[in-house]
Amino acid sequence: MSFVSDTTAPVHPRIMDAIVEANAGVASSYGADPWTQRAIAQLKDVFETDCAVFFVASGTAANALALASITPPWGAILTHREAHIVLDEAGAPEFYTGGARLLLLDGPHAQFTPQTLDAEAARYARSNVHGVQPFSASISQVTESGAVYEASEVAAISEVCRARGLKLHMDGARFANALAATGATPAEMSWKAGVDVLSFGATKNGALSVEAIVCFDTDAARQLPHLRKRSGHLLAKHRLLGAQMAAYLEDGLWLRNAGHANAMAAKLAAVLESAGGECVHPVRGNAIFVRLDAPMAERLKSAGVVLYRWAPDGPDVYRFVASWATTDADIEVCAQALAAA
Amino acid sequence: MSFVSDTTAPVHPRIMDAIVEANAGVASSYGADPWTQRAIAQLKDVFETDCAVFFVASGTAANALALASITPPWGAILTHREAHIVLDEAGAPEFYTGGARLLLLDGPHAQFTPQTLDAEAARYARSNVHGVQPFSASISQVTESGAVYEASEVAAISEVCRARGLKLHMDGARFANALAATGATPAEMSWKAGVDVLSFGATKNGALSVEAIVCFDTDAARQLPHLRKRSGHLLAKHRLLGAQMAAYLEDGLWLRNAGHANAMAAKLAAVLESAGGECVHPVRGNAIFVRLDAPMAERLKSAGVVLYRWAPDGPDVYRFVASWATTDADIEVCAQALAAA
Amino acid sequence: MSFVSDTTAPVHPRIMDAIVEANAGVASSYGADPWTQRAIAQLKDVFETDCAVFFVASGTAANALALASITPPWGAILTHREAHIVLDEAGAPEFYTGGARLLLLDGPHAQFTPQTLDAEAARYARSNVHGVQPFSASISQVTESGAVYEASEVAAISEVCRARGLKLHMDGARFANALAATGATPAEMSWKAGVDVLSFGATKNGALSVEAIVCFDTDAARQLPHLRKRSGHLLAKHRLLGAQMAAYLEDGLWLRNAGHANAMAAKLAAVLESAGGECVHPVRGNAIFVRLDAPMAERLKSAGVVLYRWAPDGPDVYRFVASWATTDADIEVCAQALAAA
Amino acid sequence: MSFVSDTTAPVHPRIMDAIVEANAGVASSYGADPWTQRAIAQLKDVFETDCAVFFVASGTAANALALASITPPWGAILTHREAHIVLDEAGAPEFYTGGARLLLLDGPHAQFTPQTLDAEAARYARSNVHGVQPFSASISQVTESGAVYEASEVAAISEVCRARGLKLHMDGARFANALAATGATPAEMSWKAGVDVLSFGATKNGALSVEAIVCFDTDAARQLPHLRKRSGHLLAKHRLLGAQMAAYLEDGLWLRNAGHANAMAAKLAAVLESAGGECVHPVRGNAIFVRLDAPMAERLKSAGVVLYRWAPDGPDVYRFVASWATTDADIEVCAQALAAA
Repeated sequence: MSFVSDTTAPVHPRIMDAIVEANAGVASSYGADPWTQRAIAQLKDVFETDCAVFFVASGTAANALALASITPPWGAILTHREAHIVLDEAGAPEFYTGGARLLLLDGPHAQFTPQTLDAEAARYARSNVHGVQPFSASISQVTESGAVYEASEVAAISEVCRARGLKLHMDGARFANALAATGATPAEMSWKAGVDVLSFGATKNGALSVEAIVCFDTDAARQLPHLRKRSGHLLAKHRLLGAQMAAYLEDGLWLRNAGHANAMAAKLAAVLESAGGECVHPVRGNAIFVRLDAPMAERLKSAGVVLYRWAPDGPDVYRFVASWATTDADIEVCAQALAAA
Repeated sequence: MSFVSDTTAPVHPRIMDAIVEANAGVASSYGADPWTQRAIAQLKDVFETDCAVFFVASGTAANALALASITPPWGAILTHREAHIVLDEAGAPEFYTGGARLLLLDGPHAQFTPQTLDAEAARYARSNVHGVQPFSASISQVTESGAVYEASEVAAISEVCRARGLKLHMDGARFANALAATGATPAEMSWKAGVDVLSFGATKNGALSVEAIVCFDTDAARQLPHLRKRSGHLLAKHRLLGAQMAAYLEDGLWLRNAGHANAMAAKLAAVLESAGGECVHPVRGNAIFVRLDAPMAERLKSAGVVLYRWAPDGPDVYRFVASWATTDADIEVCAQALAAA
Repeated sequence: MSFVSDTTAPVHPRIMDAIVEANAGVASSYGADPWTQRAIAQLKDVFETDCAVFFVASGTAANALALASITPPWGAILTHREAHIVLDEAGAPEFYTGGARLLLLDGPHAQFTPQTLDAEAARYARSNVHGVQPFSASISQVTESGAVYEASEVAAISEVCRARGLKLHMDGARFANALAATGATPAEMSWKAGVDVLSFGATKNGALSVEAIVCFDTDAARQLPHLRKRSGHLLAKHRLLGAQMAAYLEDGLWLRNAGHANAMAAKLAAVLESAGGECVHPVRGNAIFVRLDAPMAERLKSAGVVLYRWAPDGPDVYRFVASWATTDADIEVCAQALAAA
Repeated sequence: MSFVSDTTAPVHPRIMDAIVEANAGVASSYGADPWTQRAIAQLKDVFETDCAVFFVASGTAANALALASITPPWGAILTHREAHIVLDEAGAPEFYTGGARLLLLDGPHAQFTPQTLDAEAARYARSNVHGVQPFSASISQVTESGAVYEASEVAAISEVCRARGLKLHMDGARFANALAATGATPAEMSWKAGVDVLSFGATKNGALSVEAIVCFDTDAARQLPHLRKRSGHLLAKHRLLGAQMAAYLEDGLWLRNAGHANAMAAKLAAVLESAGGECVHPVRGNAIFVRLDAPMAERLKSAGVVLYRWAPDGPDVYRFVASWATTDADIEVCAQALAAA
């Protein structure tokens, strides 16, 4: 049993069934298949707008392609110092943009405020040809610390973006968890709040390997087909991406999965806190960050729980991530281990 | 029914079963799972050497990453004018290498000879800083025209490569079909013949979405982990790539699939030729290129066969690709349509 | 004495004087100096339009920056197979564009026709995401074979460009020589004929080290300040670029230099032809390409003439380039050597 | 009169004379001329070792090429947050490296300590494929705040580099000023202290437009010819770069120029301090950073002194840069203006 990451969870059976089902007979490749077309139509429904949609197989691809579609090589991307695109994508944003720079913002819980964004953007004038030129900002929803922006907070950030001439990207690898946490609709949390391009995650929430770039900006949408193809992210047997996404969205499975994962995380947080653990970030999504003393950590390990140290928050803080597949029994193991003391 | 491309075929049931089976419980992500480890071990067995292996989800990714690992930005890659990396990957080689140039070679059947390679390489001296610098060559196996190099022909090409300081890449999107056609072993057709990096295809031969970069060159192998991650091609739920590849290799499924596809293509060629069609390239692999007169084309279309024009060979030439899933019944449809005249 | 290249000639004394003169006291750096401003104003006069102007120190920089301003990374540039940007710039176009591809056209005298351009552009449809996307064309004026396009020929090419959605770049490293040969005005030979961005050469025609990117396209003009700075081509002591260009344009020095060089080339061509040499390309600009038999070549060498073999035209063809500094005496040396036989 | 930057100063007359002198008759282009060869030989003498030398026309080019020769696209460069390569080169390091990342270090006076370097490098493990990979470090000598590293301090930094597998670049745009300040020899301050590649500046210290990349690392040296050519920084009339550098080095002109500039800066600092100004950084090189109250600033401006605000140190801090051309009379203007109060 493992709370190491939601990427360690299996594919949800309804999604796996859809893959198996879609795998009958021949089908057009590279996206010209009915499953893909259906999933695109579903996303337009979900987002209540005629967005452009591009499926890829990894979150890093979704983020890097999205950023490249709104940032020229001489541009800069303002983002939080602890963002996934900064720490966990091995320079993919730089690769895809042709060398744009990440400008790093501070703030608790891996979130930044409109004020922080504005102040950093103000340091770079378009007229100063000697510096990099801010062209975009990127926020994570849920953040790497498990925090969530309210839709109104996103809107406040996008207002600064408009004023400063920046396009806004949202890394929504855990977008569903943010919706489950806030109750906002997909539209409210994205284009209505000023998001230009969204990485809409599914892999961490029950899919096998599919993410959607949901593009509300027409300039970006024109570039993405070429950016995707030439990076090798236009998959041939594309129906199997489409089938995953269609099943993911069908009947609100995606929101149920996320709601479950969030609830499990909250439950686990309660268990750990009541045993003396301290949550160092707000518990909103499916990841919690808990300071444990050495005996607590030891007891959990003895019970077979794999612990994942979260260095940015100190040597005694651990990350626990719940997923659609986390069960009460998993949490009970933790509870038992700690009660045993 | 369609002979448009082997990418339109479904996933082989044994591979789909393996995906479903691997999808139980949690598993480490990013490749540290037993399915991936097993598939890597199998490939080392298959190739009879301690190669480095990297799984990705698309053939374009495999080719572009492989080329980037052996070609600096100021380098050039010698390849056939009709190669997949030239015509069908939207500039991925240029993107991944940071701007290396493709130098295009001529030759029938999308193949080039050692002499042609040598002559072109000879035009570029390392001492002439004003020109691009040849660093690698790339051959396709099977070629875009369905032709196959014998292992001895690959060796002759690699000899020129050695003499000219070039590394040799093989685009083996249909490597299995080439082995089935020639009877060579995987080792004979790759490193024993001087191949440095191989794109080992599976997607077109029964997998869902997995290709292996099989790397015999240690310098390239050191760079590939970083190249892959930063291009977004290190998938999170990696066990499902591993499971595909393991099932693909298990019990020689890959070679049986390829043998079947080749046999079906030969059968179809015979049917079309006996009705007056003309194969414009040698029939070796699973793709055939046939000149059809207008009435023949019409009859096939009427029978529901989707025809795929192959412009490089003229307006009346069509490509037919058989796959692991092609049946005698599919061919019978063609035979009947043409007999009906 | 050498006809190897016009880059071996010294700086014209009036330009050198201008550099020395401009070198008094302090002056703003990076282009905000009166010499630069004056040279820009002169160029607007010369071109009879409000173009944007950017000075750089090398022809490769001018070409690569110009191409990058009109071609995205996934784009393609159609140009002649023997163009300077293809053979002599070590992949600079690929570097600056972020990996765009050069599509190579054929044609005598390193020139291509509108028909050739149209046919190649037609092979690439914007809707086919698997291929590179033509975005620009580039012609050389004078070409690498010494040929010159009439303004009407440029206009015919640009008409194809418009129809195909391509921007047109002109590598005018020897633009002055082309004007001298044709009698066209700068405006007629550039924007009036549909050129979007022009590399306006000066270094080969008497300057020390300055070329102007003359930009008639507003989109390109917006990008060039950033492209130039971030490639290290915005020089600090910029007044010394400005001073060169101002002196170059002053009183028509540039056209007189070019006219002289062209005349000297024609004179040399006559001398060589009368001795049995054969000009293999039209003699229009300041470079001639002459087939010499072995005894002729020997006699010239004995007289101290450094011969420069021009491989593309055969082993017995040599290039001779006259410059602003070529004298009748230089040509007399050749005449004497050949008469001596 | 202006202390805005040493780039506003004219070319030193001995260097200008050398340019004029070299400009006689024809000479081989692209570096195969005697002036260039002589300057390279002089640099080998000056550095007491057989280094590889490449001339370019801008400091940004020197730095970006140097960094690209020691850092792969997936690498990271550790440097100070206020370094010229970070703030004033518009993303050139990212462009030339193909997207490597700058990791920013803190420390007073735009200097970092070995400990700071070590701590940041320690955060990135080569085995963690998800992060960028530190490959190089870059220090400025003199720094952007006018501070100077002693040779022993450079050696301490390079020791950390060796231990962490990093190559060390020195941005020596004002290398001469650092030698003048410390009394170290060129060798002691570069390769003997562990520097792998040095940007050896001349433009800011009396040349027209030439910098040398002095390369002590053989791997880097192999790549630089290609990197330079393909970025358009191999100038055609190269003798005029060679002539500048030869004159710059001749008879120690470079060190005398730097010594003079440093002395003038110290004198100016004394004048400003005695009038109530406060130097916010150590006065070592030719740039000083002085906090002035409003009346002082006003008086200087009234006397015709152009003031240059230095934002990083606060709204009331100004940068004054002396050059080889600064005179006692220039300083007297300041003294008079402030005494007038």
